Amino acid sequence: MREIVLGAAQMGPIQRADSRQAVVRRMIDLLEQAHGRGCTLVVYPELALTTFFPRWLMDWAEVDDWFEREMPNPATAPLFDRARALGVAISFGYAELTPEGRRFNTHILTDRQGAIVAKYRKVHLPGHSEHDPDRAFQHLEKRYFEPGDLGFPVWRLPADMGGAVAGMMICNDRRWPEAWRVLGLQGVELAILGYNTPSVNSQQGEEGLEKRLYHSELSVCAGAYQNATWAVAVAKAGDEDGHPLMGGSIIVDPDGFVVARAETEADELLVHACDMDATRFGKTTIFDFARHRRIEHYGRICGQTAATPPAG
Amino acid sequence: MREIVLGAAQMGPIQRADSRQAVVRRMIDLLEQAHGRGCTLVVYPELALTTFFPRWLMDWAEVDDWFEREMPNPATAPLFDRARALGVAISFGYAELTPEGRRFNTHILTDRQGAIVAKYRKVHLPGHSEHDPDRAFQHLEKRYFEPGDLGFPVWRLPADMGGAVAGMMICNDRRWPEAWRVLGLQGVELAILGYNTPSVNSQQGEEGLEKRLYHSELSVCAGAYQNATWAVAVAKAGDEDGHPLMGGSIIVDPDGFVVARAETEADELLVHACDMDATRFGKTTIFDFARHRRIEHYGRICGQTAATPPAG
Repeated sequence: MREIVLGAAQMGPIQRADSRQAVVRRMIDLLEQAHGRGCTLVVYPELALTTFFPRWLMDWAEVDDWFEREMPNPATAPLFDRARALGVAISFGYAELTPEGRRFNTHILTDRQGAIVAKYRKVHLPGHSEHDPDRAFQHLEKRYFEPGDLGFPVWRLPADMGGAVAGMMICNDRRWPEAWRVLGLQGVELAILGYNTPSVNSQQGEEGLEKRLYHSELSVCAGAYQNATWAVAVAKAGDEDGHPLMGGSIIVDPDGFVVARAETEADELLVHACDMDATRFGKTTIFDFARHRRIEHYGRICGQTAATPPAG
Repeated sequence: MREIVLGAAQMGPIQRADSRQAVVRRMIDLLEQAHGRGCTLVVYPELALTTFFPRWLMDWAEVDDWFEREMPNPATAPLFDRARALGVAISFGYAELTPEGRRFNTHILTDRQGAIVAKYRKVHLPGHSEHDPDRAFQHLEKRYFEPGDLGFPVWRLPADMGGAVAGMMICNDRRWPEAWRVLGLQGVELAILGYNTPSVNSQQGEEGLEKRLYHSELSVCAGAYQNATWAVAVAKAGDEDGHPLMGGSIIVDPDGFVVARAETEADELLVHACDMDATRFGKTTIFDFARHRRIEHYGRICGQTAATPPAG
């Protein structure tokens, strides 16, 4: 058995007025709960340190207040310190401003000694780049972030994390089977994903929460099953300054079944002991890619971006 | 509204001793039911004319008895004639033996005038090519068929079928997001799929029927949602000479929701009026490929067949 005792640390809402320090205190509280339940890895949501600011059109000077120029930094150092002291690896999302002035929606992973060992930058940015008066609220991720430039790498984790092959995605990436498959083609055993998903579709108000939770879970379960990998999807949830975010954090096994699901829209910890060897059956039978994939027929996937329907 | 009134004609078991003529009579009965309920297209399962013969290791001379050398042929002509008379398009699977002696697992689609307008040959053949003594029963699709050589084309159907963009898959293809995406990249609005899926995993007997039904539905719903297409998945079901096949035929809307589901493992017709314009919202918002796909990060999908995990 190659085990990771995994904690999915769903976070309740973060208001615009909440300080990073206050948020980090909540993250440390979740970390300590997780340690008490034996976790060796705790995963927090996308943009875990702040409110989901892309819902607002802002001046660029104001925008930069939501970004981190280094990681760790004075606000997050107490989280890294506590994780190191407890021997628990952590993974969370934040808005990254590089020294060159580039902005990314980023997620990192540390080892159990508190060193950052992996960084992913969100590839599939949803939403739009200019103010859209037809929407109930804005979703300006394409304005505030560049698409990730690191692809979908995987990392072989240390022996004290089961030697697992881990990869990361962020939020909307989960709806794109390409993201899952690129990880799957590198033998991923644990797919880590954080999200901030509005409870309301800004372009179809009547869609409803239940449908949106279904779409999220459908995508995560299909991605896990079809790549025979553990998956953890962790929400920031609840009402942020009048804007509801859905919960529904889940841990999914390599057979595509939900093994733990959040019940609230608040800070809430899910725990599951994940045996990385449970990925083996799927990877060596129905999803043995070497025997079954037929890449000679997949050319459009890499060769064209847009759909090109036949004339008619 | 661009409507197809779709009939999913699940078929109960076909025993080894059953004649093609007897099977075609059952198909005509389902066709007439469908016409009575207003259907303009009826979809039957994979290998609709015979038992699921790849479960047996056979001499090649005997194997060829399960294949069709032309389509239509004397056994199936009455089905084509009746469909033409009723003005109902049909789609079904059969084992195809070409004049050159090549064998494919094939699915065809006719227009409402009974002419074959589309042919697909199964790309993702499951199972194995040599007798496997470790399996509870054989699954010799890789022995009896070549992988399909036609890719995943789509066809623009005539105006009397809503001008829909239709594509086909067969059985195991539904578990491969690559198949769905290649269709999606051609603007598919109706994905047609037939299957024969054993109720038991030949390599993991304790898996159980419920799990296998879940995996099938998960794959079809995710494929439909992530490509904003209608999908119909039609089973041959029930006990064939002591070998159970699962049912679970479904019609799924472009939002990934099941709108009709078979209740039996017998001949059973599902009907749903499918508006092709219901695909538009997904295709122009969250799954607007032109705006959101990032093919520069998908290279592995077309560039490598097998998984290549990092060293460890």
